[in-house]
Amino acid sequence: MVTEDKKTIGIVGLGLIGGSMAIDLKRRGFADRILGVEKDPVNATAAQRMELIDELLPLEDCIRRSDLVVIAIPVGAAVPMLTQILDRFRELGETGKIVIDTCSTKSQIVRAARYHPCRRQYVATHPMAGTEYSGPWAAEPNLFDGRACIFADTEESDPKAVKLVEILYDTLNMRPIYMNADAHDVHAAYVSHISHVSSFALALTVLEKEQDEKHIFDLASGGFSSTVRLAKSSADMWTPILTQNRDNVLRVIDTYLDKMKAFRDAIADYDSDRISELILEANRIKKILR
Amino acid sequence: MVTEDKKTIGIVGLGLIGGSMAIDLKRRGFADRILGVEKDPVNATAAQRMELIDELLPLEDCIRRSDLVVIAIPVGAAVPMLTQILDRFRELGETGKIVIDTCSTKSQIVRAARYHPCRRQYVATHPMAGTEYSGPWAAEPNLFDGRACIFADTEESDPKAVKLVEILYDTLNMRPIYMNADAHDVHAAYVSHISHVSSFALALTVLEKEQDEKHIFDLASGGFSSTVRLAKSSADMWTPILTQNRDNVLRVIDTYLDKMKAFRDAIADYDSDRISELILEANRIKKILR
Repeated sequence: MVTEDKKTIGIVGLGLIGGSMAIDLKRRGFADRILGVEKDPVNATAAQRMELIDELLPLEDCIRRSDLVVIAIPVGAAVPMLTQILDRFRELGETGKIVIDTCSTKSQIVRAARYHPCRRQYVATHPMAGTEYSGPWAAEPNLFDGRACIFADTEESDPKAVKLVEILYDTLNMRPIYMNADAHDVHAAYVSHISHVSSFALALTVLEKEQDEKHIFDLASGGFSSTVRLAKSSADMWTPILTQNRDNVLRVIDTYLDKMKAFRDAIADYDSDRISELILEANRIKKILR
Repeated sequence: MVTEDKKTIGIVGLGLIGGSMAIDLKRRGFADRILGVEKDPVNATAAQRMELIDELLPLEDCIRRSDLVVIAIPVGAAVPMLTQILDRFRELGETGKIVIDTCSTKSQIVRAARYHPCRRQYVATHPMAGTEYSGPWAAEPNLFDGRACIFADTEESDPKAVKLVEILYDTLNMRPIYMNADAHDVHAAYVSHISHVSSFALALTVLEKEQDEKHIFDLASGGFSSTVRLAKSSADMWTPILTQNRDNVLRVIDTYLDKMKAFRDAIADYDSDRISELILEANRIKKILR
């Protein structure tokens, strides 16, 4: 399936996303060799023992030896990492190397690189796949299959770089969707970030009650488990997402608070007609969910 | 496994719960014969064609011919149905017949029957299993396996009746949990009702945005799908649950609104430390979820 020569791929951050990419890019023949960078020593050792990567090495060496570098770390750290890697491309005089990021917010990272002389070697992407787990042990084969991958602001990247990254995500069986970074962040606030915040809030609500009701969770049903599942998600990943996408997330939270208050008012008034209306309206989500 | 003689079981309401019970009670040998009552003609015909029941008949005949009647209709209709069935037991002079309900709120239905002369023939239960789908076509085998079943206020029921109902739920592979009806409703508000309200609110939030962004759902990830899944739940079932459990649900919604506002404030202030604290606190849900 891979139409280009096999590549050396560097992956910075060997967690759920980086680790899962390593597995499928190697076994599906896109990558000839996977180099890994991981600053957490436990994660680094685990990734080696799990044989997610061919070689663990310092960032500097990884940049030098990779044809394409994937930044798969939380977006707060990813922004300076991107400019650092582009700086290094420049210093090395490497015009053929490519760097991509996989972050869940795109406006800030794209803005940070906008006027960099090596901007065209960067392709901004967001593979929309994942689980609530993190770390190399959360990596799994086929994680990306069939999911959407956003390509943001591709007009600012070298078309040849975009083409190679398209092949990379095609290898992962992802559907490419093209949009600008700001539109991405609005949409992500609606279909991903608010789901996480509402799940965190639900967990906090129930945990507070649990303090005096030790066996409340005997009753936790499948519905509760699925709604609260995202509340297991990592603070390292989600704190920078929520601050970087602050304005969009606040707007969505405010709409959400209005909807929740509409339920509250209808229930407080014993207004069955209104409750029923709200539920029937919410049921329209059926036509949209796969 | 069934230690008593085989029984004729009447099921009032051939939806997800009634239909799924019919399947497993029959094939696992607890029921000798399943009689069904269903006022919706489409559901009634579907249940017959799907062979969920042996015979469809009017309520009156079902009460007369069943050893045990299961009320599996929305709780708003279940409350008058229970007293109607107990009245009929009395008129028929039937002291050996049993009726159970399967409703998601217990205080009101238990209160409605409290002083009925045939109260001891009623066992209040809540099998905590289900999906977001409804109707006879949502019925499935093994739906109840391994889940919790609440028995409420069993001291007000005939011990022999309780025993038989325990065998019924044991046949469905459910874990019995005993508590009073009011405690049940508090717990259900926390582990089930708020999950549904938050999911409805999430669906409404996203659907509002969708009006001007037709392709937002291309981006809907697995996280969104699982969090919003319960928003497909039926208004017929959930409207009476939310009004009957009004006080508990309002209290939980208020706590939930506080938690959501805590996130809102921390995000508005770019207060990464506080966001991180809230997420780490929410992560404690890991130790509880199966």
